[in-house]
Amino acid sequence: MTRQELVEQIRIKKSFLCVGLDTDLSKIPAHLLDTEDPIFEFNKAIIDATKDFCVAYKPNIAFYECFGPKGWESLKKTLDYIPSNIFTIADAKRGDIGNTSTYYAKTYFEYLNCDSVTVAPYMGEDSVTPFLEFKDKWVILLALTSNKGALDFQMIKDENGEELFKKVLAKSAEWGTPENTMYVVGATRAEGIGEVRKIVPDNFFLVPGVGAQGGSLEDVAHYGWNKDCGLLVNSSRGIIYASNGQDFAEQAGIEAEKLQEQMAKILEEKRF
Amino acid sequence: MTRQELVEQIRIKKSFLCVGLDTDLSKIPAHLLDTEDPIFEFNKAIIDATKDFCVAYKPNIAFYECFGPKGWESLKKTLDYIPSNIFTIADAKRGDIGNTSTYYAKTYFEYLNCDSVTVAPYMGEDSVTPFLEFKDKWVILLALTSNKGALDFQMIKDENGEELFKKVLAKSAEWGTPENTMYVVGATRAEGIGEVRKIVPDNFFLVPGVGAQGGSLEDVAHYGWNKDCGLLVNSSRGIIYASNGQDFAEQAGIEAEKLQEQMAKILEEKRF
Repeated sequence: MTRQELVEQIRIKKSFLCVGLDTDLSKIPAHLLDTEDPIFEFNKAIIDATKDFCVAYKPNIAFYECFGPKGWESLKKTLDYIPSNIFTIADAKRGDIGNTSTYYAKTYFEYLNCDSVTVAPYMGEDSVTPFLEFKDKWVILLALTSNKGALDFQMIKDENGEELFKKVLAKSAEWGTPENTMYVVGATRAEGIGEVRKIVPDNFFLVPGVGAQGGSLEDVAHYGWNKDCGLLVNSSRGIIYASNGQDFAEQAGIEAEKLQEQMAKILEEKRF
Repeated sequence: MTRQELVEQIRIKKSFLCVGLDTDLSKIPAHLLDTEDPIFEFNKAIIDATKDFCVAYKPNIAFYECFGPKGWESLKKTLDYIPSNIFTIADAKRGDIGNTSTYYAKTYFEYLNCDSVTVAPYMGEDSVTPFLEFKDKWVILLALTSNKGALDFQMIKDENGEELFKKVLAKSAEWGTPENTMYVVGATRAEGIGEVRKIVPDNFFLVPGVGAQGGSLEDVAHYGWNKDCGLLVNSSRGIIYASNGQDFAEQAGIEAEKLQEQMAKILEEKRF
């Protein structure tokens, strides 16, 4: 999907919501466990219930990979089921030396046909650029993450007082463009979002941490907004586990719609 | 596998060789392509030919993952085929927020029953420690990698002139012990190996970059040695693609034996 197509979807749906498909077999409703592929059945119902309120889905690969071939089948079926006008993010946090990154890119961009994949920056340029060679596909690079451990290395200051996450932003901005590179910026660090926005004014951000992790949607919009919206705000647990009864999909739809309505209000305020 | 068991294997086999199973369908002998599972058939023959000369195998997950469920079956069969006295490394470079890292750990330590997995440090403590909670399993943390891009971030100096890779070593040494944590240190940065050794005197290093990438085994042993050897030196392409004819396994065995003999000489010089 191109940037223009994504921005168009945000306008049409009045939403910049990404629904995280962190589908955990120990948390899904008991009545699904007897089906042949409980993970896919759960995802299918969640997608049906939420697809009008979101512009992106983000399956977290760890939750599929842990079941081996069977989990990869559930993942593939899920991605094939997502409507083609919805942006797909493989939350995989991959990254390795060049040739290996090319194989990871083939996995996510060709085999699974995702629009994007999350990538870890520690190994530098030749671990990231192989992902940028696929047309209309995106790298979403870890910059400032929402977890506690983000403070361990991402905030280390260099000799000029500049934090590592800023070095990652500035350097990686030389490798890709706002047409093929987004950044992961946690909602739990609202002011950090503003600092990131100054360095990469045009790129989209994937923002986890709203809801269960405590981040505020208003703060994210305040600090992260750019002329094309520039935000995909993710919610996983708050939507997909809104209920673990027979009504799980209905409740997920209600939670997704609540977030979409808040987003519509923000988009209106921004005259988008 | 425990550290003591690994050290014992190094003594018995007079080797600290790790064979990298970066099994690329486009590089394996043509006569295998007609078999039902060419990747497994290749690996099986390579393992048969090299298992007396190495103490570890390291499948690179990207090369399996790119085939979806079928690739994961080849990977599982390969790991099941490796003799239990040989240390297994899932070269996956994973790492995510706590709950997700736990699922990655389950994949590699439970589903695939590997002894270890490579982990990327960018997200900090809570992305790494979930892997350390599995008994007799190992984290192999990226410290100073062998690729060109390693210079982009790993060598950035902080306000006290200390490079990022040293911060990663010092900090992560608080999370684990030399009984459950190793480090990836590239052979292409021989003097860097010495600097890493000063900070973590007791940990094992996984050292890629000997052979095809240009690193020297003698330099690695000179700078990286510790009282328990402390080294697993990886070779992938130089061994597994020594020939792409009918004799591929035989030639792989010959190349592995050559390295083992060089290692035996080093172990003898070190009076190990």
